Amino acid sequence: MTANDLKGKTIAFAASGGLDSCTVTRWLTELGVTVVCFTADMAQPDEPDFSDVEKRMRACGAADFIALDLKDSIAEAGLEIIQSQSCYEGRYWNTTGIGRHVIVAGMVRAMKKKGIAILSHGSTGRGNDQVRFQLCTNMLAPEFQIYAPWRDELFLKRFGGRSEMIDYCNERKLPIKASKDAPYSTDANLLGLTHEAGKLESLETGPWFITPGMGVLPKDAPDKPEQVAIRFEQGRPVALNGKNVKAFEAISQANVIGGRNGVGIASHLVENRFVGVKSRGVYEAPGMELLGSAYMYLLQLVLDRRARELFDQLSMFLSKQIYQGYGFDLASHMAREALAPTVKLATGTITLNLY
Amino acid sequence: MTANDLKGKTIAFAASGGLDSCTVTRWLTELGVTVVCFTADMAQPDEPDFSDVEKRMRACGAADFIALDLKDSIAEAGLEIIQSQSCYEGRYWNTTGIGRHVIVAGMVRAMKKKGIAILSHGSTGRGNDQVRFQLCTNMLAPEFQIYAPWRDELFLKRFGGRSEMIDYCNERKLPIKASKDAPYSTDANLLGLTHEAGKLESLETGPWFITPGMGVLPKDAPDKPEQVAIRFEQGRPVALNGKNVKAFEAISQANVIGGRNGVGIASHLVENRFVGVKSRGVYEAPGMELLGSAYMYLLQLVLDRRARELFDQLSMFLSKQIYQGYGFDLASHMAREALAPTVKLATGTITLNLY
Amino acid sequence: MTANDLKGKTIAFAASGGLDSCTVTRWLTELGVTVVCFTADMAQPDEPDFSDVEKRMRACGAADFIALDLKDSIAEAGLEIIQSQSCYEGRYWNTTGIGRHVIVAGMVRAMKKKGIAILSHGSTGRGNDQVRFQLCTNMLAPEFQIYAPWRDELFLKRFGGRSEMIDYCNERKLPIKASKDAPYSTDANLLGLTHEAGKLESLETGPWFITPGMGVLPKDAPDKPEQVAIRFEQGRPVALNGKNVKAFEAISQANVIGGRNGVGIASHLVENRFVGVKSRGVYEAPGMELLGSAYMYLLQLVLDRRARELFDQLSMFLSKQIYQGYGFDLASHMAREALAPTVKLATGTITLNLY
Amino acid sequence: MTANDLKGKTIAFAASGGLDSCTVTRWLTELGVTVVCFTADMAQPDEPDFSDVEKRMRACGAADFIALDLKDSIAEAGLEIIQSQSCYEGRYWNTTGIGRHVIVAGMVRAMKKKGIAILSHGSTGRGNDQVRFQLCTNMLAPEFQIYAPWRDELFLKRFGGRSEMIDYCNERKLPIKASKDAPYSTDANLLGLTHEAGKLESLETGPWFITPGMGVLPKDAPDKPEQVAIRFEQGRPVALNGKNVKAFEAISQANVIGGRNGVGIASHLVENRFVGVKSRGVYEAPGMELLGSAYMYLLQLVLDRRARELFDQLSMFLSKQIYQGYGFDLASHMAREALAPTVKLATGTITLNLY
Repeated sequence: MTANDLKGKTIAFAASGGLDSCTVTRWLTELGVTVVCFTADMAQPDEPDFSDVEKRMRACGAADFIALDLKDSIAEAGLEIIQSQSCYEGRYWNTTGIGRHVIVAGMVRAMKKKGIAILSHGSTGRGNDQVRFQLCTNMLAPEFQIYAPWRDELFLKRFGGRSEMIDYCNERKLPIKASKDAPYSTDANLLGLTHEAGKLESLETGPWFITPGMGVLPKDAPDKPEQVAIRFEQGRPVALNGKNVKAFEAISQANVIGGRNGVGIASHLVENRFVGVKSRGVYEAPGMELLGSAYMYLLQLVLDRRARELFDQLSMFLSKQIYQGYGFDLASHMAREALAPTVKLATGTITLNLY
Repeated sequence: MTANDLKGKTIAFAASGGLDSCTVTRWLTELGVTVVCFTADMAQPDEPDFSDVEKRMRACGAADFIALDLKDSIAEAGLEIIQSQSCYEGRYWNTTGIGRHVIVAGMVRAMKKKGIAILSHGSTGRGNDQVRFQLCTNMLAPEFQIYAPWRDELFLKRFGGRSEMIDYCNERKLPIKASKDAPYSTDANLLGLTHEAGKLESLETGPWFITPGMGVLPKDAPDKPEQVAIRFEQGRPVALNGKNVKAFEAISQANVIGGRNGVGIASHLVENRFVGVKSRGVYEAPGMELLGSAYMYLLQLVLDRRARELFDQLSMFLSKQIYQGYGFDLASHMAREALAPTVKLATGTITLNLY
Repeated sequence: MTANDLKGKTIAFAASGGLDSCTVTRWLTELGVTVVCFTADMAQPDEPDFSDVEKRMRACGAADFIALDLKDSIAEAGLEIIQSQSCYEGRYWNTTGIGRHVIVAGMVRAMKKKGIAILSHGSTGRGNDQVRFQLCTNMLAPEFQIYAPWRDELFLKRFGGRSEMIDYCNERKLPIKASKDAPYSTDANLLGLTHEAGKLESLETGPWFITPGMGVLPKDAPDKPEQVAIRFEQGRPVALNGKNVKAFEAISQANVIGGRNGVGIASHLVENRFVGVKSRGVYEAPGMELLGSAYMYLLQLVLDRRARELFDQLSMFLSKQIYQGYGFDLASHMAREALAPTVKLATGTITLNLY
Repeated sequence: MTANDLKGKTIAFAASGGLDSCTVTRWLTELGVTVVCFTADMAQPDEPDFSDVEKRMRACGAADFIALDLKDSIAEAGLEIIQSQSCYEGRYWNTTGIGRHVIVAGMVRAMKKKGIAILSHGSTGRGNDQVRFQLCTNMLAPEFQIYAPWRDELFLKRFGGRSEMIDYCNERKLPIKASKDAPYSTDANLLGLTHEAGKLESLETGPWFITPGMGVLPKDAPDKPEQVAIRFEQGRPVALNGKNVKAFEAISQANVIGGRNGVGIASHLVENRFVGVKSRGVYEAPGMELLGSAYMYLLQLVLDRRARELFDQLSMFLSKQIYQGYGFDLASHMAREALAPTVKLATGTITLNLY
């Protein structure tokens, strides 16, 4: 699908408010496409000012702007990751993978209300994310079409790279934010940060090269242990250190507690991307690591040997599915149904010493 | 647990009405045990006359006799085997394995109503069945005790073998049935027959050595194909050749249709028993083979590649669990929950040519 | 890659001798490509006259013609399928899937000798085969390039369909064979036939619609059983009915014996293709079914319960790998190494009654 | 088997030199059994004085005493655990489980040379170890018999508990070591320590309750990071911080480096024991954790997505097998063969920051 096929139509565009978003929105608008911009609030630690994003996107020509409140959705999705212990290839808590599912689900819901049936996203052609956008949309709304500028020959010919986009925006006096060259790129939501690309591609760069966004590096953590007690009922964290919490608060507060103790900060992994290349990421997910480890101890108490074996297999399977963008398909649904009886059993209080 | 521990207590004994049942019932009664005999009607093809069994057991001293109607239970259990395609090590439809689960579930229900908490069965010490009785009871009623005469030193010392039992019964003028020496032993229920032991232990004996009880050998089947159309709705066979059926009728009629065409008659298998020995069985399960194959074709239409992969793993897992007697544990429950979404999708009509 | 990139270069083209082969060879030659045609002798039941194919391809402009003798290769590959019991989604013996591996391996070997580094094949864009050609080549010769006319815009624009190709060849007086419209298409090698597409796409068409090429339909098989004794030593069939055989003979003769008894003729399956669509195939693989079943019985005797469980998982895994074209990758290599100890144990004679 | 069956025979007894060993050796000797005591040197951190053990066992009546040097065996076995990443239910490095395999293999080798065919061990009836001794012996020497005093009614009647054994030894003036009441029991070898039972049974006791034997608790580790570079060649650690090492040295030195940084000290786990009960262990395995983690990073670089998936499954399977004592059976052999190709690929240097 190229931009030409969109003329006279209305599309929903997942806009971050960055240079790409501005360029795509204006370029499509000029071609005669009605662009409705969607931004997701997933409680990302580097939370943008949504009214600011709105102003910018409207200035670029967006016909409408919708800020989706997905804070509870991402918390519930994080809870499912904890309950299924679906870490990818070791200890990566699938925070970006599940995030894409949450965005697409939120957009599809809103698009159906608005009567828009073309979903567009700015993920580049090399990575996992474009595959996830595609698969998630196909599963939830098979009748929808998808438009990805980074796979459109027309767009690629017009904008060879970053500098063409800057020139394009400046010529039109679009309010792009001056951004300095980052040494790597980061994806963020409530559950965690994923740093990759740039200088991280080199295996010579240690994982402690990054500047953490959700806490301190283990080496900078305080020198005395902090104790935290987590109460689970039927698989849900209902109290932290004796105070009642909902899912969103549980993860937010666990991010703070874990983060200040260097828990789950700057773990790293060379992943096998779905598209067949290896990629190296450095991760921060203090709350997921904290709650996820506590849940793991709880599982040791409630699962017998055979249930454990099946749990481990399903966990590995579901983790792969979410990483690849298949989290809404029949097989993922099956795996989740299988785990439900274990979730019901997961009641108890776990006390951890963080150091 | 020995018989001495039972004095003055009431037990529920799974009685077939054969020599063993008579001997055990009388011997325990003489020791001061109150024996309540239970017999299960699972629509076994060689269906016994239950009033005759009752007369015999009461004559042997049984304090009470209860005939459990488990015809619908075994049909529903068979349906679950079909839906999960849980054949053991190839094409054995687990008919005896699931049968034990159904008996124990039926007895436990009835025992709780009667206030009896000791379950006794006549399975010998070498086989899978004693393990299955034990595990199923533990799962469904962990507070129950189990008494197995064939693992009681006291019983084993008193009755070295068959002839001691015959003498014992004759001395007491108990109404045992004269039974001729069978060339092998057979377990039976609605779902199928399992022939094993005796002459079948020798690999020189071909599987066609047996006299089929549920149809004809393939070589004796009619020479022209018979067509059968099976309609499934949400995983249940609801019509055969256009006529509406319930689960029990579906399997009964499929037994007749399959049986007369030699379908699923005398398949054989060298199994790995749970207790660590190999055992060779010859099986008859015409209805299960017929409905199970039709269901397999239906699954080919409804499962995508990833769902198929997970289905196959869960199917293999559940099959092993049922064979071993773990069909009521947490892991089996998980596997069944996972399969539920596939059952809901299984709607369609499959037409087979039997030959 | 388009044909334009090939100008002045030499390519190896997997040519069947049919209309497509003639068209592609001539069209590329006219564009300035040096086309070396390769044909594989895999003992396909409908074996072509290779000298005839050679004449035709040279007449179309082929710079050279090489007939690869892959009869032993396909037999050895078939043996591996038997030893790993790697049937895809039920009872399809992966005969076409493994065939593609054998062809690519044979071509890569020959191409390296000749110094050719571009492999071309005529598989269409919709199916599994183009993926298999691509993956197998990547694994065995990562430095090679692949050219697929059916994915080349240039070729697709020139030849919209069959009639354009016929016209093109007739204008140039190329010796194409007059071919009648087949009701379905067939892939063939020593191991079996795969019929698909055409009228078989409709689920209304029964599998017995096909005209078998390797034997008779079960309903047309003789009415009395035939006995066959197969001797395996360390996993290899070394004697049939007491006469010594090599791998190739074992499969050829098993094809004859199985075929005349309707064994493995016209089994059918709705597959999940790798590329995401469902496809319905009807299969013939009498020798594979015969030897494969005998091997399965042998495995029942030699594998203990835990080895069996691992075997079944590896078998399922390897089957999927071969189906998808990953049979030469690290994971497939691992699975084969795991199975090697079971192959060494597989010694014994199995006697089957065919009916 | 009871002690009476051993009269006049020679047995090999796995003796630790403790109270149990003394009691069993003397008691059997008095009954007319020839007891040859075997002690294994597996470089356990709390390494006993073997000449002292020998003196004591001879004083108790041992006919002979053999100290088996299994230092290299345990190192090689540890390497296999690393290469297969076979941690049990999370991060327990299976150090005790594999240790039992190494002891049995060592004893069986020596026993065959000496012509002894009865193996005896002092593992109690409740745990995993008696099962492991039994299974390992069955696999390696199916013709051997096994005698376990703690499952011998005769022994159990004579010695109800610890105090009867102390009285028995004191009466005979046997040189038992005065041992104070330990708050928990510990199993030790080169690879790690397993603390369990006693006060650790209570979930109220935190894992930091133990006094570490192989390093310091994380909270007591130095406050600045230490860097360590590990060079692997074909899966073997060949250099630490640039200095060449053999397998035994690699693990010994990694124990020191990891231990002083609190790596792998006092991880804990509630395990599902093979015999059906849950058990809580606290573990120390600094070298295994250090080398194992480095190896895990290396695997991220060498395994593609499908190889990774198979690796993870085999790893989980092998881990379970070793934990349960099946490490010498056919299935374990298959799994190890599958992993061999990955071992060959594992070449590279990994640098870790320990903190």
